[in-house]
Amino acid sequence: MNKTIPSRKKHSVLPAPTIRRFPLYLSFLKSLKGKENVYVSAPDIAKTLRIDSTQITKDFSFIKVAGKTKVGYEINKLVQNIEKFLGYRDPKKAFIIGIGNLGTALIKYNQFSQEGLEIIAGFDIDTEKVGTRVISTKIYHIKNFKKRFNETPVEIGIITTPSEQAQIIADTIIECGIKAIWNFSASPISAPGTVIVENTSIDSGLAMIKWKLNAGRPLIYK
Amino acid sequence: MNKTIPSRKKHSVLPAPTIRRFPLYLSFLKSLKGKENVYVSAPDIAKTLRIDSTQITKDFSFIKVAGKTKVGYEINKLVQNIEKFLGYRDPKKAFIIGIGNLGTALIKYNQFSQEGLEIIAGFDIDTEKVGTRVISTKIYHIKNFKKRFNETPVEIGIITTPSEQAQIIADTIIECGIKAIWNFSASPISAPGTVIVENTSIDSGLAMIKWKLNAGRPLIYK
Repeated sequence: MNKTIPSRKKHSVLPAPTIRRFPLYLSFLKSLKGKENVYVSAPDIAKTLRIDSTQITKDFSFIKVAGKTKVGYEINKLVQNIEKFLGYRDPKKAFIIGIGNLGTALIKYNQFSQEGLEIIAGFDIDTEKVGTRVISTKIYHIKNFKKRFNETPVEIGIITTPSEQAQIIADTIIECGIKAIWNFSASPISAPGTVIVENTSIDSGLAMIKWKLNAGRPLIYK
Repeated sequence: MNKTIPSRKKHSVLPAPTIRRFPLYLSFLKSLKGKENVYVSAPDIAKTLRIDSTQITKDFSFIKVAGKTKVGYEINKLVQNIEKFLGYRDPKKAFIIGIGNLGTALIKYNQFSQEGLEIIAGFDIDTEKVGTRVISTKIYHIKNFKKRFNETPVEIGIITTPSEQAQIIADTIIECGIKAIWNFSASPISAPGTVIVENTSIDSGLAMIKWKLNAGRPLIYK
């Protein structure tokens, strides 16, 4: 990925893992604010989040926050800059396809509104779900996706269907002109290079836990 | 992390991102098997999964699979070695705490059984849920966690509670002797260094999508 990002200054290239860590920093920093702390040190953050403290310092340099000797980082400043960086005040609209338990959980996930994501409609093939609402989000039949999209274009399509349907749904919404796909199905999807694809893989988390539980003895057969 | 893993041979150190990619490779490879392909090339995998093809070659070297000139990798061999590496035939038991939509979705997630994860019981504070079953998984009151744990020790505790409860639940199950915590709440949890903690953060995925949608103009204020 880095190869395709033009860069003269080394520090203008933002590594993907850094971007992924910002929400974790933010959640931790907000928990400190409640305790009336003003400053926090990189080693203190490192301890809870299990991230190397030099990595934390490096990550914070990307959002133009520098620590002060002996006291550390100003929490308010960090929170402010991370929220700006993550576009909390720059909301994006999304449609979600697949209103099973995971789809319902995502619509109900109360962090999204403050993080600048609005799931404005849901889609399913189950006629019993069509016409109902999850909180205030109305559920439509998937065959009406294009019509809805033309009426209210959104940038993000969230796929929470079973694996077998993920690619067909992706093809459909790409044809409508969706810019980004957030894929929660277990199956990777192919898409033209112009479409942003983000896979949130539950399986990757499990792989990591199992590897750590077996640490030192990865089960490799020749 | 790498610093703490003792290593003489460079190739014996397994980077975390490599481990996290294996389930993605596996899912893609299995989709090819249905089409009666025997071999697959790194560039073909690269195209669908949007992973650099030299990275793929490197990842596969960790599981002792080398490609053949012109034909690529034998799909069956890759599938076999990745499944072994990920411990698909080495099942781990888990308890899940927080039986909301996400908790229910995870219990119903039909990949886990083939991936070697058995969620054998659920826990909640909601008395209406206690005593019910999600598929065949019985739901108990959280106050009975210790009793259940002593009767049937599990290695993994999956936390799907709201953020505010995550740390309290973590403390409780760590005291019981849980080895690994899989945290799906939005809040990071602190745990002793001896306990494995894996955060599956939905917010990180959103951060990545929003950053890509705003590509080239990250919202950094001075």
